[in-house]
Amino acid sequence: MTPTPLYLDCDTGIDDALALAYLLASPSAHLVGIGSVSGNVSAAVGAVNTLNLLELAGRPEIPVAVGAHDPLAGSFDGGAPHVHGANGIGGVELPASRTAVQQESAAQMLVRLAHAYPGELNVVAIGPLTNIALALRLEPRLPELVAGVTLMGGAVLVPGNITPVAEANIANDPEAAREVFAAPWNLTIVPLDVTMANVLEEEHRLELLASDKPVARALGEMLGYYYRFYEGIFGRACSAMHDPLAAAIALEAVNLRTAPVVRAEVDAGSGPGRGQTVCDLRGMHVGFPAQEGARCRVVLELEQDFAPHLVDVLLGRVPAGSGAVTAPESVPA
Amino acid sequence: MTPTPLYLDCDTGIDDALALAYLLASPSAHLVGIGSVSGNVSAAVGAVNTLNLLELAGRPEIPVAVGAHDPLAGSFDGGAPHVHGANGIGGVELPASRTAVQQESAAQMLVRLAHAYPGELNVVAIGPLTNIALALRLEPRLPELVAGVTLMGGAVLVPGNITPVAEANIANDPEAAREVFAAPWNLTIVPLDVTMANVLEEEHRLELLASDKPVARALGEMLGYYYRFYEGIFGRACSAMHDPLAAAIALEAVNLRTAPVVRAEVDAGSGPGRGQTVCDLRGMHVGFPAQEGARCRVVLELEQDFAPHLVDVLLGRVPAGSGAVTAPESVPA
Repeated sequence: MTPTPLYLDCDTGIDDALALAYLLASPSAHLVGIGSVSGNVSAAVGAVNTLNLLELAGRPEIPVAVGAHDPLAGSFDGGAPHVHGANGIGGVELPASRTAVQQESAAQMLVRLAHAYPGELNVVAIGPLTNIALALRLEPRLPELVAGVTLMGGAVLVPGNITPVAEANIANDPEAAREVFAAPWNLTIVPLDVTMANVLEEEHRLELLASDKPVARALGEMLGYYYRFYEGIFGRACSAMHDPLAAAIALEAVNLRTAPVVRAEVDAGSGPGRGQTVCDLRGMHVGFPAQEGARCRVVLELEQDFAPHLVDVLLGRVPAGSGAVTAPESVPA
Repeated sequence: MTPTPLYLDCDTGIDDALALAYLLASPSAHLVGIGSVSGNVSAAVGAVNTLNLLELAGRPEIPVAVGAHDPLAGSFDGGAPHVHGANGIGGVELPASRTAVQQESAAQMLVRLAHAYPGELNVVAIGPLTNIALALRLEPRLPELVAGVTLMGGAVLVPGNITPVAEANIANDPEAAREVFAAPWNLTIVPLDVTMANVLEEEHRLELLASDKPVARALGEMLGYYYRFYEGIFGRACSAMHDPLAAAIALEAVNLRTAPVVRAEVDAGSGPGRGQTVCDLRGMHVGFPAQEGARCRVVLELEQDFAPHLVDVLLGRVPAGSGAVTAPESVPA
């Protein structure tokens, strides 16, 4: 398998840390650059967390660029310390990396990499879409230059997590998300519909904590904090798997059961729908017939639970994106 | 059982005709007035259809008032002839009633009836909410005066039917719906989540056609037209049961499995969410804990399929609202 050059845009973040560790463990991903953006934490703190994780994983050579501190409109709201902790990674203290961030911004890095790998670059965005929108403004030909964009975001047929209808990554910068959804490229979105239905349980966290791999152990510690937030949502110690699932879907490492390609746009108005990802699923009763102008693949359901695969990859049992996910039982071999 | 005085606001409409017939067959409902509103058809045509159905049912004494032709903002869009036919009842020709409409408007009638039956009036709204909003403007004490409001409208965790997120009754007058949802009364809403999950099949239509009751036969004929529209939605000849289900729920004639009381508002902005009913279902994973200020009961799921009950009532096998709906099998007797 030829490794895919991949640009990751993140707001690290506990589930961003899971996604990063997943990608680092994957032979099918060639992580050529990482940009940070304000979301779970500020872009600056996200970059530090990312550098420290790369150091812990023995991969300090992967370049990290700091991205936008503020969304396109308004100001960074301070992030989600109640979810991710004050330092973004559940209060876990990682050894400090001595590697510096790049001189270029995240948006500049993305544009540079898109030109360096024309038609090949896989863009994975797991934070607010500010940097991606800025890159589109810097280089309007970006949609022709990149191979694809996969993003964690949206809540389609399930409640939002920031408002009744809006998911945090989209709602933290609806203006940016509107521009990204309107650009002429094929998007794959990984919304709460599927990330809330794939849950990491306490048994998985204990497996990570018992690992001899420093990154896996650190993730297990972070998840202790993360689980406390999700206990209020699910009623038990566990967590959704937002960002690592988007990473796995970008690598085509999981089989999708329901993922229609539909028209989609983002509400950037000032009403109760602000930050909502509006996807046209009206064809659901007849198997989603083709829609003119549809360019957004919405992942609604997987063939099987994601947690065992994620844990296997993080523990080094199987490489990410190795095709280790087996076909569902209902499909003849 | 003491009959409940009931005001029906409708845009008759094939499923409105089903709801009206259902209420007329119910000993627990005392239909003291009906207002028409533009929606499926114009308010004027809706009133004529209603009068003709009352005549066919032998109930010409029930007063009918014509309501608003235009929504609060903008103009009536011509209705939905592709769904309900040019005359609103699938092209079926009913004998013309010789009864005249009332001199008062629908909003005036509603206010008058609320005063005539203080604390008792059951308001059932199965069209756009223009008349209800106008009545609230005429009489701001309306919420204290009526016993309750049940409306067919909204799409909460399912796609809309007018836009990807908006249902027709709400979307046809979002400004009115916003005022109705903001008023200090307890609402019960019956959204597409439950009306699209309860389907009337071809076998049910054939039963109605074979009836010796003129109203049941007329409904069977209308449904032939309605089913052709829904064939494009469901892939077979059948229909959703929007309005009659709202009528049955207003009479407490069906058992509800999932019906949380939550905060709700209507998006009356100009973005992609215009006309959406935004309900806060974020507590769904832990059984919907109480929300401060919540006044909107959202019917998401019934205990059992509604179609057999509806057909039984329309054929006179059991009276509507008679408690004939049995407990689900999973509940011990």
